[in-house]
Amino acid sequence: MTAWDALAARRAAIPVLAPGTVWLAGAGPGDPGLLTLDALAGLSQAEVIVHDALVDARLLALAGEKARLEFAGKRGGKPSATQADISQRLIALARTGARVLRLKGGDPFVFGRGGEEAAALAAAGIPFRVIPGITAGLAALAAARIPATLRGVNRAVIFAAGHGADENFDWAPLVRARAPLVLYMVMHNLERITAALMQAGLAADTPAAVIASATTPQERILIATLQGLAAAVREQKIDPPAIVVIGEIVKMRERLLSETASLESRQSS
Amino acid sequence: MTAWDALAARRAAIPVLAPGTVWLAGAGPGDPGLLTLDALAGLSQAEVIVHDALVDARLLALAGEKARLEFAGKRGGKPSATQADISQRLIALARTGARVLRLKGGDPFVFGRGGEEAAALAAAGIPFRVIPGITAGLAALAAARIPATLRGVNRAVIFAAGHGADENFDWAPLVRARAPLVLYMVMHNLERITAALMQAGLAADTPAAVIASATTPQERILIATLQGLAAAVREQKIDPPAIVVIGEIVKMRERLLSETASLESRQSS
Repeated sequence: MTAWDALAARRAAIPVLAPGTVWLAGAGPGDPGLLTLDALAGLSQAEVIVHDALVDARLLALAGEKARLEFAGKRGGKPSATQADISQRLIALARTGARVLRLKGGDPFVFGRGGEEAAALAAAGIPFRVIPGITAGLAALAAARIPATLRGVNRAVIFAAGHGADENFDWAPLVRARAPLVLYMVMHNLERITAALMQAGLAADTPAAVIASATTPQERILIATLQGLAAAVREQKIDPPAIVVIGEIVKMRERLLSETASLESRQSS
Repeated sequence: MTAWDALAARRAAIPVLAPGTVWLAGAGPGDPGLLTLDALAGLSQAEVIVHDALVDARLLALAGEKARLEFAGKRGGKPSATQADISQRLIALARTGARVLRLKGGDPFVFGRGGEEAAALAAAGIPFRVIPGITAGLAALAAARIPATLRGVNRAVIFAAGHGADENFDWAPLVRARAPLVLYMVMHNLERITAALMQAGLAADTPAAVIASATTPQERILIATLQGLAAAVREQKIDPPAIVVIGEIVKMRERLLSETASLESRQSS
């Protein structure tokens, strides 16, 4: 286990999750290999781990033996009435003097409501730390071999989220920004959202991809055009969670996937 | 060293960096705690590590003892003639049968030219793997306690890059997208770019932040308005590398930084 030996030998300063404090940490997309060292340190030290539905079981298996796991997940589409409850729970746990890890899928500050939880902790005077994670959008792009940015193609990339509740969101300003779109939580309304994007002026033949369950054994990747995307997702029965990418960058996947260059399997050392 | 013991004990499958292959990995922003487990596994197994200037020395110190470090960095503003050389170097190293880690600051697919290197590797038939990293923009936001997205404030966030060479870039479509801007590599042209943003319609009093050398001991954070940003950076002598954030989300920093809630120091365990 050379990697860990090396790290242990050089022993970089590992932060201490102190009693009565909360770490608001990103768990990344699911693959334990994409966990950060600090998130791992949190898993190991926490007495209570409050986690989302999207946090992979393989990550929770890395928790310390005495850690108590609390599920506080919400899936897209559900009412958000419990957000205040989650924040209050974190505060209550910290006030008992527990070492608390709040573990969220992806990055806590990217479409994860981490900002709301952090604000509640700050208002309550609870010491907390924010540990970024690999956000699902970028993990999905790497998994699909689609660069988020490419010289000569795009100098900007837009991350946006869809939600079932808000049918009146105006996609036109984002479309007119002429940058690739990386979309979170749009699978339940994909037909409507792709139609809205086309109506806003995005060409029907714009390359598009869906990357579902990126970096997990359930990972699935679908390539289509903007116009054909929703039907293809239906036909191939691709389920959320998934990231949708729309833009010329999607074309790069073909170039980056050469027969001989594929190296997809993970092996045990 | 509980965290590593726990991981070693449960021994998740650790991917093997095989001879003749390249891992194109993100090193994250600098703090070793934000390295992913896979990047650490790469550092440990690589025989040659080809790294950028932006890769923190604390990370390179985690390389295996027999690893050879090769510097292939470019700083912003330099001509890019060497990009082809870097790709050719990776191919040549892989063809000698070496285990090669190409380590780039942040995420290799976000303003890192990883796409170009991946395309060259694919064209040459070199097996490679892409390992995402914590991109500088998101690391900077977490460090500054500025959520990238916040319910009720924004449903989209734009990542964009400035470059010295391209003075004619049209910022107006991005401004009209009405989403916060997270800007990479704009420090050398901050006066011109902030002026262009205002000319494109972004209000002069839009909250703005500069986060320099995020997650390193040199980290500095400056809060200003869009209009006052360039002068404040000059006055306070803030140097790149830095991320610039412009938008209402910057205001959240104040709420997330309560006196009692600050927990900035890292301690050794």
